[in-house]
Amino acid sequence: MMAMRSGNGAITRKFAASERAAVLVEALPYIQRFWGRTVVVKYGGNVLAEAVPAETKLDEFDAELDSFAQDIVLLQSVGFLPVVVHGGGPQIDSWLSRIGKKPEFVDGLRVTDLETLEVVKMVLLGKLNPSIVQAINRHGGRAVGVSGLDSSLIVATKSSERLGFVGEIVAINPDLLVRMLAEGLIPVVATIGADTAGQGYNINADFGAAEIARALDAEKLVYLTNIDGVRRDPSDPESLIQKMTETELAELFEAGSITGGMAPKLRSAGAAVAGGVNSVHILDGRIEHSILLEMLTDEGIGTMIVSEKKGGEDGG
Amino acid sequence: MMAMRSGNGAITRKFAASERAAVLVEALPYIQRFWGRTVVVKYGGNVLAEAVPAETKLDEFDAELDSFAQDIVLLQSVGFLPVVVHGGGPQIDSWLSRIGKKPEFVDGLRVTDLETLEVVKMVLLGKLNPSIVQAINRHGGRAVGVSGLDSSLIVATKSSERLGFVGEIVAINPDLLVRMLAEGLIPVVATIGADTAGQGYNINADFGAAEIARALDAEKLVYLTNIDGVRRDPSDPESLIQKMTETELAELFEAGSITGGMAPKLRSAGAAVAGGVNSVHILDGRIEHSILLEMLTDEGIGTMIVSEKKGGEDGG
Amino acid sequence: MMAMRSGNGAITRKFAASERAAVLVEALPYIQRFWGRTVVVKYGGNVLAEAVPAETKLDEFDAELDSFAQDIVLLQSVGFLPVVVHGGGPQIDSWLSRIGKKPEFVDGLRVTDLETLEVVKMVLLGKLNPSIVQAINRHGGRAVGVSGLDSSLIVATKSSERLGFVGEIVAINPDLLVRMLAEGLIPVVATIGADTAGQGYNINADFGAAEIARALDAEKLVYLTNIDGVRRDPSDPESLIQKMTETELAELFEAGSITGGMAPKLRSAGAAVAGGVNSVHILDGRIEHSILLEMLTDEGIGTMIVSEKKGGEDGG
Amino acid sequence: MMAMRSGNGAITRKFAASERAAVLVEALPYIQRFWGRTVVVKYGGNVLAEAVPAETKLDEFDAELDSFAQDIVLLQSVGFLPVVVHGGGPQIDSWLSRIGKKPEFVDGLRVTDLETLEVVKMVLLGKLNPSIVQAINRHGGRAVGVSGLDSSLIVATKSSERLGFVGEIVAINPDLLVRMLAEGLIPVVATIGADTAGQGYNINADFGAAEIARALDAEKLVYLTNIDGVRRDPSDPESLIQKMTETELAELFEAGSITGGMAPKLRSAGAAVAGGVNSVHILDGRIEHSILLEMLTDEGIGTMIVSEKKGGEDGG
Amino acid sequence: MMAMRSGNGAITRKFAASERAAVLVEALPYIQRFWGRTVVVKYGGNVLAEAVPAETKLDEFDAELDSFAQDIVLLQSVGFLPVVVHGGGPQIDSWLSRIGKKPEFVDGLRVTDLETLEVVKMVLLGKLNPSIVQAINRHGGRAVGVSGLDSSLIVATKSSERLGFVGEIVAINPDLLVRMLAEGLIPVVATIGADTAGQGYNINADFGAAEIARALDAEKLVYLTNIDGVRRDPSDPESLIQKMTETELAELFEAGSITGGMAPKLRSAGAAVAGGVNSVHILDGRIEHSILLEMLTDEGIGTMIVSEKKGGEDGG
Amino acid sequence: MMAMRSGNGAITRKFAASERAAVLVEALPYIQRFWGRTVVVKYGGNVLAEAVPAETKLDEFDAELDSFAQDIVLLQSVGFLPVVVHGGGPQIDSWLSRIGKKPEFVDGLRVTDLETLEVVKMVLLGKLNPSIVQAINRHGGRAVGVSGLDSSLIVATKSSERLGFVGEIVAINPDLLVRMLAEGLIPVVATIGADTAGQGYNINADFGAAEIARALDAEKLVYLTNIDGVRRDPSDPESLIQKMTETELAELFEAGSITGGMAPKLRSAGAAVAGGVNSVHILDGRIEHSILLEMLTDEGIGTMIVSEKKGGEDGG
Repeated sequence: MMAMRSGNGAITRKFAASERAAVLVEALPYIQRFWGRTVVVKYGGNVLAEAVPAETKLDEFDAELDSFAQDIVLLQSVGFLPVVVHGGGPQIDSWLSRIGKKPEFVDGLRVTDLETLEVVKMVLLGKLNPSIVQAINRHGGRAVGVSGLDSSLIVATKSSERLGFVGEIVAINPDLLVRMLAEGLIPVVATIGADTAGQGYNINADFGAAEIARALDAEKLVYLTNIDGVRRDPSDPESLIQKMTETELAELFEAGSITGGMAPKLRSAGAAVAGGVNSVHILDGRIEHSILLEMLTDEGIGTMIVSEKKGGEDGG
Repeated sequence: MMAMRSGNGAITRKFAASERAAVLVEALPYIQRFWGRTVVVKYGGNVLAEAVPAETKLDEFDAELDSFAQDIVLLQSVGFLPVVVHGGGPQIDSWLSRIGKKPEFVDGLRVTDLETLEVVKMVLLGKLNPSIVQAINRHGGRAVGVSGLDSSLIVATKSSERLGFVGEIVAINPDLLVRMLAEGLIPVVATIGADTAGQGYNINADFGAAEIARALDAEKLVYLTNIDGVRRDPSDPESLIQKMTETELAELFEAGSITGGMAPKLRSAGAAVAGGVNSVHILDGRIEHSILLEMLTDEGIGTMIVSEKKGGEDGG
Repeated sequence: MMAMRSGNGAITRKFAASERAAVLVEALPYIQRFWGRTVVVKYGGNVLAEAVPAETKLDEFDAELDSFAQDIVLLQSVGFLPVVVHGGGPQIDSWLSRIGKKPEFVDGLRVTDLETLEVVKMVLLGKLNPSIVQAINRHGGRAVGVSGLDSSLIVATKSSERLGFVGEIVAINPDLLVRMLAEGLIPVVATIGADTAGQGYNINADFGAAEIARALDAEKLVYLTNIDGVRRDPSDPESLIQKMTETELAELFEAGSITGGMAPKLRSAGAAVAGGVNSVHILDGRIEHSILLEMLTDEGIGTMIVSEKKGGEDGG
Repeated sequence: MMAMRSGNGAITRKFAASERAAVLVEALPYIQRFWGRTVVVKYGGNVLAEAVPAETKLDEFDAELDSFAQDIVLLQSVGFLPVVVHGGGPQIDSWLSRIGKKPEFVDGLRVTDLETLEVVKMVLLGKLNPSIVQAINRHGGRAVGVSGLDSSLIVATKSSERLGFVGEIVAINPDLLVRMLAEGLIPVVATIGADTAGQGYNINADFGAAEIARALDAEKLVYLTNIDGVRRDPSDPESLIQKMTETELAELFEAGSITGGMAPKLRSAGAAVAGGVNSVHILDGRIEHSILLEMLTDEGIGTMIVSEKKGGEDGG
Repeated sequence: MMAMRSGNGAITRKFAASERAAVLVEALPYIQRFWGRTVVVKYGGNVLAEAVPAETKLDEFDAELDSFAQDIVLLQSVGFLPVVVHGGGPQIDSWLSRIGKKPEFVDGLRVTDLETLEVVKMVLLGKLNPSIVQAINRHGGRAVGVSGLDSSLIVATKSSERLGFVGEIVAINPDLLVRMLAEGLIPVVATIGADTAGQGYNINADFGAAEIARALDAEKLVYLTNIDGVRRDPSDPESLIQKMTETELAELFEAGSITGGMAPKLRSAGAAVAGGVNSVHILDGRIEHSILLEMLTDEGIGTMIVSEKKGGEDGG
Repeated sequence: MMAMRSGNGAITRKFAASERAAVLVEALPYIQRFWGRTVVVKYGGNVLAEAVPAETKLDEFDAELDSFAQDIVLLQSVGFLPVVVHGGGPQIDSWLSRIGKKPEFVDGLRVTDLETLEVVKMVLLGKLNPSIVQAINRHGGRAVGVSGLDSSLIVATKSSERLGFVGEIVAINPDLLVRMLAEGLIPVVATIGADTAGQGYNINADFGAAEIARALDAEKLVYLTNIDGVRRDPSDPESLIQKMTETELAELFEAGSITGGMAPKLRSAGAAVAGGVNSVHILDGRIEHSILLEMLTDEGIGTMIVSEKKGGEDGG
């Protein structure tokens, strides 16, 4: 039997067609431009907490991870080389309390004694990382969980006695990631590091993502968060900034407009741009397919930070 | 100065975003699936006649070629390997009359004496082919004009004494095209062939495109025409066929539903599908970006012909 | 200043020299023969329990791992391609009890509900695996932690409703390991698997090691345990078997000589040899450098199982 | 039956042998020296006019092209990489008059309005170029017709308003030719160029050949003309110059000895040598196999121009 | 100063030119056809004896080797891959007598006791082989002396007790030669072989050359001798055979026309052709450049033996 | 039948095991460090004289060469790239006297007239070199005899009129050796050289080995002699020097401690170290496996000379 078209379909189709064509004509050059370029996506602990809650459940029902995993796989399917870096604060808190420990913070950084470090490693490497890997694999990607210990990816040193086993990054050895990307694998990185004597450290994932993006000479660094971007006035949703340069970012810092959890994220964003990453994006991870929209359409979503020099030419 | 977003932009954007995301989520898998696959596009003489009229004009004002050339370049930019094959009947007629010759046809095929052959070669190779090459180059592609004589691409023999120097294809030597595609070039082919003694022949471009598609093991063969597709009842626009198999095509021929210029096109379409080309598409070249819409969206445009075996799995 | 030799050194040295030369003349052909060949080493949970106890301590003081890690690095340094597979039973028990759960076993296999599975993943992937990785890295190797989820290395299915989330291996996708070995990396594998829907499973490490050895077409599979090998009469240390064929192993099973934890190990050993692994070795991991001695000297240590066909020619 | 030699054959053969051996001993070192080196041969319009007259005839009877095509194929067969560049003045004149236009020249350059440009393209690309391609293919070569438009080979700009669409070369993009040569193809180039906006231009073939030779870092540039070489005194056949340096060529210009059509040829010859081409040769294309004799024997034919520095060492 | 041509030079040159062109047009196709093909040249002891006499002299005055060495270097320069195999009977005799031993032969093969074997090795490897290597190097080739012992090139076994250390070839391991040819080296082979226990043997050079030609899948095997070829009637110079097939050769043997030293040469020639060598040539090495004339001209010199199947198509 | 272990074997084995393990743990890092590094071994004429005496005997009974050949093959089997350079003074003397010539020396260098040169070449290339090649092949290596003439390996010039055809090295062309090493072959070099006119020369093998080691950028140069190393006081065996730097070597020369045949060896050793060879070793070739012990154990045997800069770090 032949498939016939309904009578008025031609008109409807013709109408929709021009709009669909416009989206494609807009998207294809971005795909060409970024083909083979690396994109580091920081999957924030708060967004992730909604996708992978602390309580135990069946892996195949992690439905909230699906949109994220699909985007990563779609990006790779058209030639981007995605690297996922993830945090996990809320789930760590939950497990610490489960074994009777109380989370403690200094200046927003977790005080990490040996026992806390063990829980951090177990939650990040044993719970969250494999959940993301499995979600990407369910969508046909070939994800591989990576810790900063693997092939000495993240070399760290103790940042301060007071914080305990919190590490400061000394060096990134990106070879392992470079090879994985070349082989079509999608690395999912948990930011545990080690010093040269082999002692492990808890590393802030925002900083980790920025350093990895620099070391990989990434095209883009994307922070998926639970806010809609950077606002000039944090209390005013109308003051959202679509695009700014490093200098403008520095001015915002000086003006005291950046506070709370946004501060470390933006500080590492600035460092990434200064270090050669072409653009950093702060996106609302709760909007479906926010990564695709940011990368493949002219308008974008959230806030984009670019270097002074490249400011003019680097849309998309 | 920072670029701020207008107050109500967020809402509008959010709305449009989900639609744009849907188009992208639909298109990206096609891009992945067809990455590195060859698509032969037959640019019909009648459509081309509107783009490159017989009269002389400035090259840079061939505005009508633009949408076509842009689509070809966009397809290549996301990994398709396009090959353009073109005809040129109207322009040949025009030049023949200019030197005082009257076009003559038998069964829709041009009677080609030596002098006509010379005009055919001059119009195709010296006028139309370079126009298409230049248009693609203006859009950033790297097109290369190719005749069937080059590296013995099209080996032909005289089809009948009555038609004179009209050739029947004996063999295609696709190496030249294969290498050009591998090097990122876009071949633009005029279907002049030669026999082993070196005598040139005028080759029907529909047949030429189909044979080239077979020899290249192409994914798709697209006929850009000036009709909206194949109709069950030629006089009824409502009877347009969206998709059919080889068998259904054979039934249409038997039923006598296929007449006129559509007959050779569909006969070569059937041969191409039988010869391993995954799908043949008859599209209305006057719709802007019709190629993109056919290749990158679920619904498609025009008529698609697939082999029996692959009928079910091969959308897009 | 010149380094002079003590008077009687010459004699001592000359004497020792012939013995040292004999060891080298014996070892070098093994090195040549096994150059570029894969060796899968199963680091058993009980031996590992002494090296990495359940309680928390500084990473750099995992002194017990040192001899093991050094052997792995030395083997690689002379051309072997080592893959480490590890278990972790005792440490899992310890963490389960820490959150108030009681381990439960059926036929020697751990009954694994969802919560237990989560603890298994966290202990293996978050605690033991990184400890081994760090130890190897401290000795100059480039170890990479790998779970069976990574790039779908271990595809599993539920083995029985009664055991819960205990998986049976359906397929091994060894590409990830093959590439890592080719790049000079040392994979350290925790045998967590997943089914095609993405649900994770707890996989017996003995079986996992054997299947990985088969999939890698490994030269050797080594089980490092806390016994001295296979005995004909379990209670008689004098009855230790140095070398046997598959057939002889089958006879031992029939005779009822194999009991307890040795049964699954030897069953998977038999399957590995049948599947093409040249030899399986059961070694006492508590003897320092037992791996080196087994691989590079004529006499060997522990018990070696070879296939009937290769029995005669495959010493070392 | 055995093939026996005639009685006195031995003597005759022995005699001829030493002479034949001498030719070979002379030729082989040139073949070795130039193996894999590029030779650009400008096939002049006047010589070509005898081979491919304006009137229409059967392709396979272009007998006059045979000696030329054979030489090109022989050169390639022993490792040279030949590139043919051709003109076509006489045939263009003939076609212009056919459509009622009168050729017009300023300083030896053709005044080219839009209509003339169209005829130039049609005659060069549609008539002469395919004739040469077919002749080479008849001799077993794999020739490919190339216009300066293909892959933007010749980028040009308008040279003067007065001359209309006559182009001056701005850049050569030799990649297309380099790849063709590497693949064993023989490019046959018609010197139509285009500016960056895509407007086509008529380019002088002598200049075009010289620029292509420079861009390809060619070993030799050969002008096949209908004169016997450069004469010190144009009216005295005895004053033919066999070899001269750039400086000597400049002196000839100063002395006013170079006039007429020889001037642009020698000016571009000088530029080619200055630009790195090892030698430029002006040969009489009417002598059979003049290219072979020039390249493979010590004496040579016609006039050879070399750079000052290389003057002494570069015979053949 | 400009190089001017003498007045009447043009005429002389033009005349000679057509003849020189004819030789080139004849030779170039052979060069193309045999490019990259292996040619084994057996340099016979008798011809060699004139070039390198037994008495001691300065190396640089081995003038007689010059024509031979030049031909080998010229052949290589145009793409042939020459392998030289040499004998040395007369010089061995001379050295044996020098140490007081009398040469002894049975059926034309040298009876070889241990002491004779030592002299054979010393003369071939220490005197003749280096002389040929040096002569080729003087002409710019890169020759390398090779014995059948090197990398076990010639594996032999004792042919009979009566002959002593005369070897029969058991196997050829051509890898060493294949690699040398691929690297542009010219192997010069002395046919000393060894059995698997490492005992050396004296190998007949005619047989050795034929076996090496077979193992290398050579295009041609050339015997340079001191006769003008094979005669139907040995006493009648008029009966020289230019070309014959294997079958015709067999007929000659049957007719008893082949006697003396020609017998082993022709027997191995027949074996070489039967084993896949395209043609075997018996040439008079005393004619200057006889190899070039045989390989690069239509007529040839001496006698050529081809297989039945290839008889018709394989001139040159 | 199962192979059972004797009752008390376990204890014995355990004891020996720790010692054997210690040798291996010591050796493996050297193997890793020197993997793929070149070692030039000079096999001295005096040691060789015991292995291959002047008198004629069966090749397979050269039993004395066995330990040497086995060491070379073992070194290669674990990744070293050995090159053997040999002398042959005693055997040359013997053959000279056999043809009635009396050896004559000036300052320890052989006066070499034309006839002597011929004997030198015949003994080195025709007798000793093939003996070493065969011995290595008997042990499974793939040795290839090389003279300094091959591919112009050793370019020399006459050192003085008084010495006759004794050559001084002008240049080493190591390509041939580099390629052989890359292909797994073991070159065995006789140090005959030639000047650019092709005249051969006798080259001192100690100097030759040092120059070859420099040209190959060798890791080590080993002189196998018939003494136990360098002594501070030649008459006092207790004064053997285990390790010294270039400077210390220079001091020994100044102190007049170095005399006789040791002088040229140590002078070339100093030059080799200065030229980039990491270490030079003077060993007693009469100790079995002395090469293995020197290269793969911490203590070493004989005397090791290193450069000042590398003195501290370069044991083994």
